[in-house]
Amino acid sequence: MDKNYIEEILQKYKEGSISLEGAMESLRELPYEDLGFAKVDHHRALRNGVPEVIYGAGKTCEQILKIMESLEKRSNVLVTRVPETVYSTIKQRFPQADYSPLAKVMILKNHEIKIKPGYVAVVTGGTSDMAVAEEAALTLELFGNRVERVYDVGVAGLHRLLDKRDILYHANVVIAIAGMEGALASVVGGLVDAPVIAVPTSVGYGASFGGVAALLSMLNSCASGVSVVNIDNGFGAGFLAARINEKIGG
Amino acid sequence: MDKNYIEEILQKYKEGSISLEGAMESLRELPYEDLGFAKVDHHRALRNGVPEVIYGAGKTCEQILKIMESLEKRSNVLVTRVPETVYSTIKQRFPQADYSPLAKVMILKNHEIKIKPGYVAVVTGGTSDMAVAEEAALTLELFGNRVERVYDVGVAGLHRLLDKRDILYHANVVIAIAGMEGALASVVGGLVDAPVIAVPTSVGYGASFGGVAALLSMLNSCASGVSVVNIDNGFGAGFLAARINEKIGG
Amino acid sequence: MDKNYIEEILQKYKEGSISLEGAMESLRELPYEDLGFAKVDHHRALRNGVPEVIYGAGKTCEQILKIMESLEKRSNVLVTRVPETVYSTIKQRFPQADYSPLAKVMILKNHEIKIKPGYVAVVTGGTSDMAVAEEAALTLELFGNRVERVYDVGVAGLHRLLDKRDILYHANVVIAIAGMEGALASVVGGLVDAPVIAVPTSVGYGASFGGVAALLSMLNSCASGVSVVNIDNGFGAGFLAARINEKIGG
Amino acid sequence: MDKNYIEEILQKYKEGSISLEGAMESLRELPYEDLGFAKVDHHRALRNGVPEVIYGAGKTCEQILKIMESLEKRSNVLVTRVPETVYSTIKQRFPQADYSPLAKVMILKNHEIKIKPGYVAVVTGGTSDMAVAEEAALTLELFGNRVERVYDVGVAGLHRLLDKRDILYHANVVIAIAGMEGALASVVGGLVDAPVIAVPTSVGYGASFGGVAALLSMLNSCASGVSVVNIDNGFGAGFLAARINEKIGG
Amino acid sequence: MDKNYIEEILQKYKEGSISLEGAMESLRELPYEDLGFAKVDHHRALRNGVPEVIYGAGKTCEQILKIMESLEKRSNVLVTRVPETVYSTIKQRFPQADYSPLAKVMILKNHEIKIKPGYVAVVTGGTSDMAVAEEAALTLELFGNRVERVYDVGVAGLHRLLDKRDILYHANVVIAIAGMEGALASVVGGLVDAPVIAVPTSVGYGASFGGVAALLSMLNSCASGVSVVNIDNGFGAGFLAARINEKIGG
Amino acid sequence: MDKNYIEEILQKYKEGSISLEGAMESLRELPYEDLGFAKVDHHRALRNGVPEVIYGAGKTCEQILKIMESLEKRSNVLVTRVPETVYSTIKQRFPQADYSPLAKVMILKNHEIKIKPGYVAVVTGGTSDMAVAEEAALTLELFGNRVERVYDVGVAGLHRLLDKRDILYHANVVIAIAGMEGALASVVGGLVDAPVIAVPTSVGYGASFGGVAALLSMLNSCASGVSVVNIDNGFGAGFLAARINEKIGG
Amino acid sequence: MDKNYIEEILQKYKEGSISLEGAMESLRELPYEDLGFAKVDHHRALRNGVPEVIYGAGKTCEQILKIMESLEKRSNVLVTRVPETVYSTIKQRFPQADYSPLAKVMILKNHEIKIKPGYVAVVTGGTSDMAVAEEAALTLELFGNRVERVYDVGVAGLHRLLDKRDILYHANVVIAIAGMEGALASVVGGLVDAPVIAVPTSVGYGASFGGVAALLSMLNSCASGVSVVNIDNGFGAGFLAARINEKIGG
Amino acid sequence: MDKNYIEEILQKYKEGSISLEGAMESLRELPYEDLGFAKVDHHRALRNGVPEVIYGAGKTCEQILKIMESLEKRSNVLVTRVPETVYSTIKQRFPQADYSPLAKVMILKNHEIKIKPGYVAVVTGGTSDMAVAEEAALTLELFGNRVERVYDVGVAGLHRLLDKRDILYHANVVIAIAGMEGALASVVGGLVDAPVIAVPTSVGYGASFGGVAALLSMLNSCASGVSVVNIDNGFGAGFLAARINEKIGG
Repeated sequence: MDKNYIEEILQKYKEGSISLEGAMESLRELPYEDLGFAKVDHHRALRNGVPEVIYGAGKTCEQILKIMESLEKRSNVLVTRVPETVYSTIKQRFPQADYSPLAKVMILKNHEIKIKPGYVAVVTGGTSDMAVAEEAALTLELFGNRVERVYDVGVAGLHRLLDKRDILYHANVVIAIAGMEGALASVVGGLVDAPVIAVPTSVGYGASFGGVAALLSMLNSCASGVSVVNIDNGFGAGFLAARINEKIGG
Repeated sequence: MDKNYIEEILQKYKEGSISLEGAMESLRELPYEDLGFAKVDHHRALRNGVPEVIYGAGKTCEQILKIMESLEKRSNVLVTRVPETVYSTIKQRFPQADYSPLAKVMILKNHEIKIKPGYVAVVTGGTSDMAVAEEAALTLELFGNRVERVYDVGVAGLHRLLDKRDILYHANVVIAIAGMEGALASVVGGLVDAPVIAVPTSVGYGASFGGVAALLSMLNSCASGVSVVNIDNGFGAGFLAARINEKIGG
Repeated sequence: MDKNYIEEILQKYKEGSISLEGAMESLRELPYEDLGFAKVDHHRALRNGVPEVIYGAGKTCEQILKIMESLEKRSNVLVTRVPETVYSTIKQRFPQADYSPLAKVMILKNHEIKIKPGYVAVVTGGTSDMAVAEEAALTLELFGNRVERVYDVGVAGLHRLLDKRDILYHANVVIAIAGMEGALASVVGGLVDAPVIAVPTSVGYGASFGGVAALLSMLNSCASGVSVVNIDNGFGAGFLAARINEKIGG
Repeated sequence: MDKNYIEEILQKYKEGSISLEGAMESLRELPYEDLGFAKVDHHRALRNGVPEVIYGAGKTCEQILKIMESLEKRSNVLVTRVPETVYSTIKQRFPQADYSPLAKVMILKNHEIKIKPGYVAVVTGGTSDMAVAEEAALTLELFGNRVERVYDVGVAGLHRLLDKRDILYHANVVIAIAGMEGALASVVGGLVDAPVIAVPTSVGYGASFGGVAALLSMLNSCASGVSVVNIDNGFGAGFLAARINEKIGG
Repeated sequence: MDKNYIEEILQKYKEGSISLEGAMESLRELPYEDLGFAKVDHHRALRNGVPEVIYGAGKTCEQILKIMESLEKRSNVLVTRVPETVYSTIKQRFPQADYSPLAKVMILKNHEIKIKPGYVAVVTGGTSDMAVAEEAALTLELFGNRVERVYDVGVAGLHRLLDKRDILYHANVVIAIAGMEGALASVVGGLVDAPVIAVPTSVGYGASFGGVAALLSMLNSCASGVSVVNIDNGFGAGFLAARINEKIGG
Repeated sequence: MDKNYIEEILQKYKEGSISLEGAMESLRELPYEDLGFAKVDHHRALRNGVPEVIYGAGKTCEQILKIMESLEKRSNVLVTRVPETVYSTIKQRFPQADYSPLAKVMILKNHEIKIKPGYVAVVTGGTSDMAVAEEAALTLELFGNRVERVYDVGVAGLHRLLDKRDILYHANVVIAIAGMEGALASVVGGLVDAPVIAVPTSVGYGASFGGVAALLSMLNSCASGVSVVNIDNGFGAGFLAARINEKIGG
Repeated sequence: MDKNYIEEILQKYKEGSISLEGAMESLRELPYEDLGFAKVDHHRALRNGVPEVIYGAGKTCEQILKIMESLEKRSNVLVTRVPETVYSTIKQRFPQADYSPLAKVMILKNHEIKIKPGYVAVVTGGTSDMAVAEEAALTLELFGNRVERVYDVGVAGLHRLLDKRDILYHANVVIAIAGMEGALASVVGGLVDAPVIAVPTSVGYGASFGGVAALLSMLNSCASGVSVVNIDNGFGAGFLAARINEKIGG
Repeated sequence: MDKNYIEEILQKYKEGSISLEGAMESLRELPYEDLGFAKVDHHRALRNGVPEVIYGAGKTCEQILKIMESLEKRSNVLVTRVPETVYSTIKQRFPQADYSPLAKVMILKNHEIKIKPGYVAVVTGGTSDMAVAEEAALTLELFGNRVERVYDVGVAGLHRLLDKRDILYHANVVIAIAGMEGALASVVGGLVDAPVIAVPTSVGYGASFGGVAALLSMLNSCASGVSVVNIDNGFGAGFLAARINEKIGG
């Protein structure tokens, strides 16, 4: 297609239907077109329902509002790490915006979402990991993925996890979320054949060092098929699972 | 099926075709059957060509040989982290074993491999990252995946990477391997829509701290859709990519 | 010149135009004069417009005010890391003082600034890095440098950066500012021939460890020609770029 | 008893059966006697079969030989971290000394060992952890404890561990030994009611940081009833388990 | 017993006293029963006075209340890390709940506690370590253990510790709690024959790094028989000591 | 010029002097040309005397030889981190290659070097830092810069440094190289007005952590105008100084 | 003397001037007396003017008050790390108590202080280090040492330090206090022959890691004769300098 | 005296007994004279027996020999960290050189040493710390200090240390050397009134991190009057103790 586009310009210039300046102008943008960036973005804008994502941390109410306004027409919008106070203000402008106080996630769902077949299992070690889990789950759902939530099944009480193993066995992707020693990722990784995305959380104290213990644990998982994202990065895990699921689904 | 199996035992015992001891014996193993472990292993053994993997580091020649002998009949065998001297000894017993001195990987390919559609792109920042890359690539190929190698395309010379972007655009999964500052993962992550598995390598010196700089860089990637495995863990990345590709392919 | 000064004293004493005490007194200060400290300081005081810098963090309003009063006559004054409340108080005494709430920088511009030829490009990965970038830019401008701001061009969307590459190509110095994985420094370092000063920022969470990930990334840059200053040290980068630019300009 | 001892000295001196110097001499040692150190040591020397322990690392052949000679008469001797070459030399002097090349432990068993009731379970995640495990097991056995070895039951294949759970359920103490992510400690801790001593090993690579990942994992175990000793400290775990078992047994 | 249970089901089904569905249903739960999880839990619920523990940190008032209500009937309840404000609210519902503002521990003692023979010594280096010590002591007492408190006997004034050595000599278990350099664990470990559980505390500043200095110190104790729990983990030490003491007592 | 190039192609195609395929072919490379990568590389190849650099670490003799052969015609060649044994082999093929056993640097100087005005001062704290210093100095000289070496002037004997301050005062750039506590960078930074590039070295032991102490020291320099490169990165400092000096000189 | 004391008791008992119980009682305390702890404490209490020290951090008003009341009769009292609010309360009970808001030190000077000959120099790099310096200085003065304060003489402006070198040359002990890169300790250590006590401060940001950069810098000082105390530990440095000065003075 | 020197030059020039050039020449060196560096060095050279110190690590045989030859005439020479092979070579040139294989210290004692009154106690936790201890002790002795060695008195067996407390009580300075958890420094610091210099050693394994555990432990000592030098820095501790002892002695 790119080649056709260049051919076309060359021909038009030869035929005189565009001037030298016009041909030059058209070719000036080629490097970027050819890089494919703009095209991809264009495609995205065309497909309704594919959400745009705003990282809310460190942004002011006004900044978030402005970006939302520019996006809402052509896609659903996901804003992560939104403090409750910011949401209150934004709600006045976008009354239809949903907000999860647990996940600190705000969602503007103006466009229908097409649900993919299969599901992603989101598993947590404890109830304190649920905030991160919900960030992942809500991200997944907005991207059109079904989510099975399997919460509070930490390895200290193995029967809780094993009781839910059917859900794990049939997932397209499993997201394993745990703080403290993060052993959940290894145990889940040993149970399933699906790719496992491990999310260390900052849940813990003392020598958990804000999630470092779980992070190292997960990076050193003795089970194969496990990869890791940043501490507390529920969105990142959800986004990656969505990408994998999209590849699977299509 | 599990249910059927239990029903069958119950019926047989009722009918007297098995004794109490026989029924007991059959049910004794149930918890494990029910856990699905044995089944999965069984399935694996049945499907020729699905490789078994031996982590060679810290194992003696004899240990490796013994495990290979028990596996070679029913599957291909992959042995990682095999020193050249160990390979020399093993070759006397298994002359058909292949060995990559670069990747320190030994392969025993007694069974035909069925190739899946699509491919995995394995990308490295520098030539020094090739050992890790080959560990990933050979793992992938033994698991029946096509691999496109894109080596030495580090971000300090961006045109080398951009020149290969077509290969990246059409991959099912991209494995991005880099040492030093590990920026490759972010740049690749920003270019493609496929899931990206980042592998930090211990290539570097001084404040690279044996791969920690690249590891942290990749965990903090500003591009979404990137997850990370342990430093120099080419096998882990290849194995995970194979799992994802299998989900995609089937 | 120092030699002349000593000769002169010796001669004057020989001729009797100064007493032994006078000669002794003149020579007493020699070590410091000879070290060149006083001279340099003297020179600085003579050249109007060369700003003096106060590090505001941990200083009281009164301390800052006192130093400003002693400096404002002979030079412009730059105060970094000034909380907004401190500025409010100081403004009552120096109503002409400018303040950037973003950069937390206060400027007292009583003397004309002579602008040097050429410019310094200040580049950031994200909008959250702008506070650090403005500290650098305002420092540069007060020292008489032109600044080209290239903000929010992180490597996850490479086209944004490449779109501005003309500005980067013609800069005398480039300051590359990024948090998270800090990959910007390597990509910029690979694009330009100018010296690159990299500033890691504390933007990020989890395994960014308050800027350590970006710091390590930048120290290990695979691109040559990159050096690094402390995390969030916008002033330091601006000051160093000003020094380089002054060497270039004269 | 101490009191009696002092009374006795006082009386003897009053009666003149010991001189002032004799009384002084006897009392000179009192502080230490009273501290109980000497007594304890004395007791130990009296009870045959209670082993003395020598930390062999960094000691010369001659130093080890000399200490062994001074100890062998009154007790069994355990020497840890003995290189094979050192053992070869010592064997010439003590032909009856046993040596485990795996655990690098040398044992001189001149005195009968009385076996305590119950047992300690020593559990490992992988075969590479066996060196540390044997150091623990041999220590325990020399101190008169029965040991149940449960090796290579890492959490990536949970059925291997669950298959042995009866052994775990009935142990007086469980020692859980694992490298990599060290998840074994948490899973074992959740299964048993006995005290669990976790030993991180330096087995692993990259971000295992020589056992730090496993160490942090075990310190942050979500299962209660788990405590941790130093990386690779098999002896320490065995010694502590022996102390607990001695308290239980008597 | 498990075997009997299965036999019984088999027989009942053979005899027709239960239907196929009934037999299936009974066997459905077997895996978990066989794993012993449910039984253990069941046993616990049956024995009055064995406390259940709630980790209060990060839980809301309502969550804690709800769990307490479900537990209080069949056991005493221990809630750790309860802020004073949370206690105030809970007291309205459970006026009989005790609270230690120092240890941040809340206790609901509806069932009689049977006291075991022997005692656990809880030793601290300074007065600032008392909060952690009380968390351990109150845990121990609720589990039916006698506690001897030996507080503020840090090694900088050795006579304070030696003065209390009789208490240490006769303890079943010693918990040694210290911040700063954590030397207490080694000195205590050298004095006693009982197992020593060391608890590093976050007491200190500068290079104590929130308890890391004490943690490393304790992990490297030159005295044998010492193991370590997480920083500030008084509950963990108390719980483990209770387990050991239970093994000793019965 | 790029524009001219495109214009020219367009005209030639219009005039028929090149075919459609020819025009397409010429434009195919445009994106890279436009990015300026190829041009820059081309320019470099045209200017004799501008050295190409090979990072020798981890490369085989053959790899280095092959790259040298492809480069030697059009430029001088610098190979860093070359072990003495590798040099011996290469010398057989390139007898004219120079080698510094101290700096582990190999130089192939087939083309005349044009020396720039001014000089760069390379300063070290101790004699052990000389290997890193020579890597910097030889890099600078091959790039056409004059170097003033000021070695072994560490801050513990301040008079040694002050004695050489005239050399420091007149340098275009100062490279300050030190291990241990790295204080040299701050003292030099306080003395001169030139940009200072600080290089921490791995000289030291214990808590120097292989250069980390010096690295942190230099990043926190209380003197402004100092930036830092990786530990032991003499080449990086030399390369950056050459870039600055080139900007100054032209 | 201890010997005399025991002799005396023995004699008195032989002569019958004390009973067996009396002799036993006197000897009961011997272990501690012999250890010298009590005696030393006793001596201290006898010598008026030797201050007792209370570490105020983490203590309540009431606790501090209670300890002060028990000490004030027999000695001066130094309380470190006292928040201003605590002082306000204590002042009501001890109106004569002095307080330094900068050093957070409270002093109760009821007893005359005998000043020792010679002095201790307390040197700081910046004004922000003054809080720590005053903690050291006030400690020294209360222990009867003369203090010469040399503040804000950081190495970035070497002439400030050299200008005061006469004070440094004649000090009995020098305390060098600095944050950021802590280079002051090395420069001072190279100038003087007196013992140097280095105090890293938490002044700085980013990669100063709360004083770690300065701490490592000081531990690796290239100047001999320098030792280090904990970050911000002004009291510790002052106390140690007082000990050295007391040894010198007497 | 400096003043006299300047006066003298001025007078001589006035009288014509020296030329202008001669006067200039004499004054040229003044800054350094005035800084006191040269004088101090001169004094040192004049006093026989004051040793010069060479840090042997990383120096070649020839370098060490050359420095020794330039020093031996005017002082004794201490060379630290000398490998045994280097000593063998040097012994051929300096047959009278002494060498401690344990401390890796070489001593050339051509000049008589004047012994100071009092002594320094050098205390170690274990026998493995003796290498560091001897480096300290031999340094002290060459500087004219008496040394009392108190080795292998670690805190795990407190009676060993208390048995030697008389030696500790009467020392002018105590050097406490220990690896592993380094608790010795705190216990010694609590026993004595002399200044304590703590030396962490790299003795240990696992979480001792090459001496970091002991280093942190010593920096956080709960006993006052303790300061710390670098890991394994026996020379540094000896040198500092010699400085303190010199201040005490005269």
